[in-house]
Amino acid sequence: MSQKLSDAEILESWQVNAKPWINAIDNKEIESRQLVTNQAIVDAIINIKPHSVLDIGCGEGWLAASLIEKGIDVFGIDGVPHLIEKARKIKNGEFAICTYEELSSYKFNRKFDCMVCNFSLIGKESTERVIASAKTLLKPGGRFIIQTLHPVIACSDMPYEDGWREGSWAGFSKDFTKPAPWYFRTLESWLRLFSDNELQIKHIAEPINPKTKKPASIVFEVSKSIYAPLLHES
Amino acid sequence: MSQKLSDAEILESWQVNAKPWINAIDNKEIESRQLVTNQAIVDAIINIKPHSVLDIGCGEGWLAASLIEKGIDVFGIDGVPHLIEKARKIKNGEFAICTYEELSSYKFNRKFDCMVCNFSLIGKESTERVIASAKTLLKPGGRFIIQTLHPVIACSDMPYEDGWREGSWAGFSKDFTKPAPWYFRTLESWLRLFSDNELQIKHIAEPINPKTKKPASIVFEVSKSIYAPLLHES
Repeated sequence: MSQKLSDAEILESWQVNAKPWINAIDNKEIESRQLVTNQAIVDAIINIKPHSVLDIGCGEGWLAASLIEKGIDVFGIDGVPHLIEKARKIKNGEFAICTYEELSSYKFNRKFDCMVCNFSLIGKESTERVIASAKTLLKPGGRFIIQTLHPVIACSDMPYEDGWREGSWAGFSKDFTKPAPWYFRTLESWLRLFSDNELQIKHIAEPINPKTKKPASIVFEVSKSIYAPLLHES
Repeated sequence: MSQKLSDAEILESWQVNAKPWINAIDNKEIESRQLVTNQAIVDAIINIKPHSVLDIGCGEGWLAASLIEKGIDVFGIDGVPHLIEKARKIKNGEFAICTYEELSSYKFNRKFDCMVCNFSLIGKESTERVIASAKTLLKPGGRFIIQTLHPVIACSDMPYEDGWREGSWAGFSKDFTKPAPWYFRTLESWLRLFSDNELQIKHIAEPINPKTKKPASIVFEVSKSIYAPLLHES
């Protein structure tokens, strides 16, 4: 493998690609986002009627902006300074440079109704860290909403098992370089990650791409679970 | 479409194919069952340590037999008399002819630690009826375990949306006739069916076929949910 496959590589890739990314979002260049997944994540959030949202890996801030427009308090964090610089131009939002490693120790001085990761959980340990942070960052009854690649679709011809995969910017402009590796998780593995962190599955959505008629993504809605013991547990 | 696509057709197909089915099971002719899915359903049940199991659509009774061997009380029901006749040869089990339509009114005179459907939820309304029956048939804290086709895998080239599909006995012996139609459900649709019936997802397993390295099935473990209201619900 030509690529190093690690969480650190992901952040490094985004540092390099922040500028073309902002252009791609501003110019609405990513078809599946325009057709399906942008609306899917907004709908999933609106549906739970949150007053406050923590947007983790907020990037240049398009999602934060559309939530703020609807009167929701949004705090966006991202590990890439150039993206946060852009996000800070959005009125009435709060944005901070904060890596996933720093998330659990960041002084938010509040808890949130809703945490959201929109295609921003790409790594291994970094993802595990973010999921674990829900314990302290989410209000009781709060929801964590995660949109990510649909495991079975994203698996393509590879074995259906957790593991690092090489990245690609196929379909993006040639301004993008150094694609980030990503950590593939099966559906079973995502659900285990939630239950290991006492998060209960409330809903799973599979937004359909109207062109391919296949899932464009998967959207997990999880909440802090109420402990339900096994039968006859001693 | 040459086939009628309805729940009634499914039962009719099984009435006709009971005999070759018994042979196929006795002779271990279904490779994916031998390689993966038989063990997967046994493991899922054993894992929750039930004292009593209701095996819905038990067929000729192989699963019931293997649970009885482990000291579990098993009640098996099936709508096909010829299959129940065969199952009744298993010692220490209880078996009854009972269609899914009759399930909710059948006098079991008890509730169960565990309900199981092993590839036996094939239809539309019949499936909805069985899922709804958990409310009365399952003990508090009890689990409903369902093994079925993995939606994304089973979808093949068709649009990923709920609907009736024509059946096939491809890969089976030529003694099989009149394949049953089946009702395709997306993952999102399965989960909605559970939550509509106040059943909470506890676990999802994706048993992997060691030859194809892809999921051979999906196994849902659900329990009676504890009501968790939306935020700020009025």
